[in-house]
Amino acid sequence: MQRRSFLKKASLGIAATGGASLAAPVFAQDTPTLNWRLASSFPTSADAIYNGGANFAKFLSEATGGKFNVRVHHAGEIVPALQVLDAVQNGTVECGHSASYYYYGKDPVICFDSAVPFGMNTRQMMAWMHEGDGMALTREIYDKYNIVNFPCGYTGTQMGGWFRKEINTADDLKGLKFRCSAFAGAVLSRLGVVPQQVAGGDIYPSLEKGTIDAAEWIGPYDDEKLGFHKVAPNYYFPGWWEGALQVSLYINKDSYNALPKTYQHAINQASNMAATQMLATYDHRNPQALRRLISEGAQLKRFSKEILDVCYAESQKLYAELSAKDALFKKVYDNYTAFREEVTPWFGVGEFNFDSYMINQVRQKKS
Amino acid sequence: MQRRSFLKKASLGIAATGGASLAAPVFAQDTPTLNWRLASSFPTSADAIYNGGANFAKFLSEATGGKFNVRVHHAGEIVPALQVLDAVQNGTVECGHSASYYYYGKDPVICFDSAVPFGMNTRQMMAWMHEGDGMALTREIYDKYNIVNFPCGYTGTQMGGWFRKEINTADDLKGLKFRCSAFAGAVLSRLGVVPQQVAGGDIYPSLEKGTIDAAEWIGPYDDEKLGFHKVAPNYYFPGWWEGALQVSLYINKDSYNALPKTYQHAINQASNMAATQMLATYDHRNPQALRRLISEGAQLKRFSKEILDVCYAESQKLYAELSAKDALFKKVYDNYTAFREEVTPWFGVGEFNFDSYMINQVRQKKS
Repeated sequence: MQRRSFLKKASLGIAATGGASLAAPVFAQDTPTLNWRLASSFPTSADAIYNGGANFAKFLSEATGGKFNVRVHHAGEIVPALQVLDAVQNGTVECGHSASYYYYGKDPVICFDSAVPFGMNTRQMMAWMHEGDGMALTREIYDKYNIVNFPCGYTGTQMGGWFRKEINTADDLKGLKFRCSAFAGAVLSRLGVVPQQVAGGDIYPSLEKGTIDAAEWIGPYDDEKLGFHKVAPNYYFPGWWEGALQVSLYINKDSYNALPKTYQHAINQASNMAATQMLATYDHRNPQALRRLISEGAQLKRFSKEILDVCYAESQKLYAELSAKDALFKKVYDNYTAFREEVTPWFGVGEFNFDSYMINQVRQKKS
Repeated sequence: MQRRSFLKKASLGIAATGGASLAAPVFAQDTPTLNWRLASSFPTSADAIYNGGANFAKFLSEATGGKFNVRVHHAGEIVPALQVLDAVQNGTVECGHSASYYYYGKDPVICFDSAVPFGMNTRQMMAWMHEGDGMALTREIYDKYNIVNFPCGYTGTQMGGWFRKEINTADDLKGLKFRCSAFAGAVLSRLGVVPQQVAGGDIYPSLEKGTIDAAEWIGPYDDEKLGFHKVAPNYYFPGWWEGALQVSLYINKDSYNALPKTYQHAINQASNMAATQMLATYDHRNPQALRRLISEGAQLKRFSKEILDVCYAESQKLYAELSAKDALFKKVYDNYTAFREEVTPWFGVGEFNFDSYMINQVRQKKS
């Protein structure tokens, strides 16, 4: 509509110049002053991911001339970390910043908005959301929770976690007490792993005492702060359950629908800017942290093909079971998988071979 | 400032609710109605890259309630494709959408804003711009041209182009008449290639007649439309001179400085949203186009290690020469290279191994 209106003006011969002309009077309701609250699932100590919410608020304020303000509350400040979805759903807060796989227990389908085992990489996920059916499908999922979602952050491929002992074969998984996310746990428990729920701050002492055998958190930048490498030095990759983590902005649907259109558009653009910034932050700081971790004794190890293959096979069985149980899961899974299988071969051509060559050049130069 | 002002209000006990309150009267000059012109370096037929400018205009209008309008003019409509920088510099138009390597002839350092041989991949480039020194350094470069730049699009790793005959060894490069971008041409001419300047629409007949031996354009989605596969079926990868192409929004500095702060922020966010959208478009449509091209006879071929190695070695010599000649080139090149060498090993860990595993899974499933 706005474009058409502009084109109409242009066709009427109104000069297109760089100078400002006096605007028509602005109705106050077009740009109301608003103060919202955002509940984050993240502690301020995990600053890169926490800042996805804080930067969204900053960018939104900037784009609205300081009129649309969002106050960001860290995990637990007004809402417990894992109850952000509920708080937004019932209107305790107008918006939240969270990762959908925290709500696997409510409904596994919601995880397609964050990360699923052997899923997409970051750019594939961005393409599915912005060009494929990802946005429409995740909006359909969140509609049940009275929420409008926006991508608001990416971490890149996460690490597979810290292990007290090496794991080389499928047998090594049996009885392993592993602190991991719920969807990964659902796959791994089929292979004998005993998934553990341990809050962030309790992971280090649990690893140290041997109450748990292994733990995954995010990646080098966040992991380093918690010191896991000192008590569980085997640092495995890749985190096949988080090939890309998409973090989301949740807006209460009633609050969203009451907004002027301009503010709805501003939310879209501010959250996207925050997403770009988070990915850039991780892509810059993870490498530095990894270097420091290795110098302090972290042992970088690749999951064996046997481990990856058994996990992949179990994940496919779990997907089939979840699809058989729930029509919406099947609909989203089929769309997601078809998209991934369509785009993945292309990523194996130019991107993969360019990266491969450059990684080897840097290795040779450094060695 | 805006954040502090909000925090002050909050601390004074003004309720943070979802309801709209009446705003203070808005000064007309805070949100003036503006009509700008954007000159694009791209034809509408290359819709994915052209839409970087068109989407920027759409998003900017949306975020400003239809007040800040930018009319997009395709290549040649008011400014020739390769004169967009000049037109923005001298104020013929307020803004432009272009790729900086078109201006290699003016000053090679400007290419760090788009793509350089054996440079960064897309995420590395985004990280350098948004977290590293890339934005400050490219702003310093463009300041000489009275321009303020914003990233406004990515294509992903481009293809190496269409070749009438196979090229396997460094000897095969000698005398090869190759239509390619200027910086690639500067490297390749040292290896005996004869770089050709051929406008987009003339490439097909030139390849057909054999006036040229090879040509590179963008990637499958754009290349398919021009039909190169019918006359030069050997489709090589990777395009080592464009591991990532960043496309830019150019704003005349005087026009930019005259804007209200809110509009400056809106430009930043709208261009970033357009950048995200362009990358998603390419990552979705290139795979589909590649599949069709292969079914119509395109022969996908990887540049041999010998070819890549001689090109890499020559590019390093050229970088050294350009650095010796120009202090700003050296400053930007050193910063860019140090950043790439710091982050690349990390990309070789989780990302690369996750991608590698998933590419193989999809291949096995399809075969």
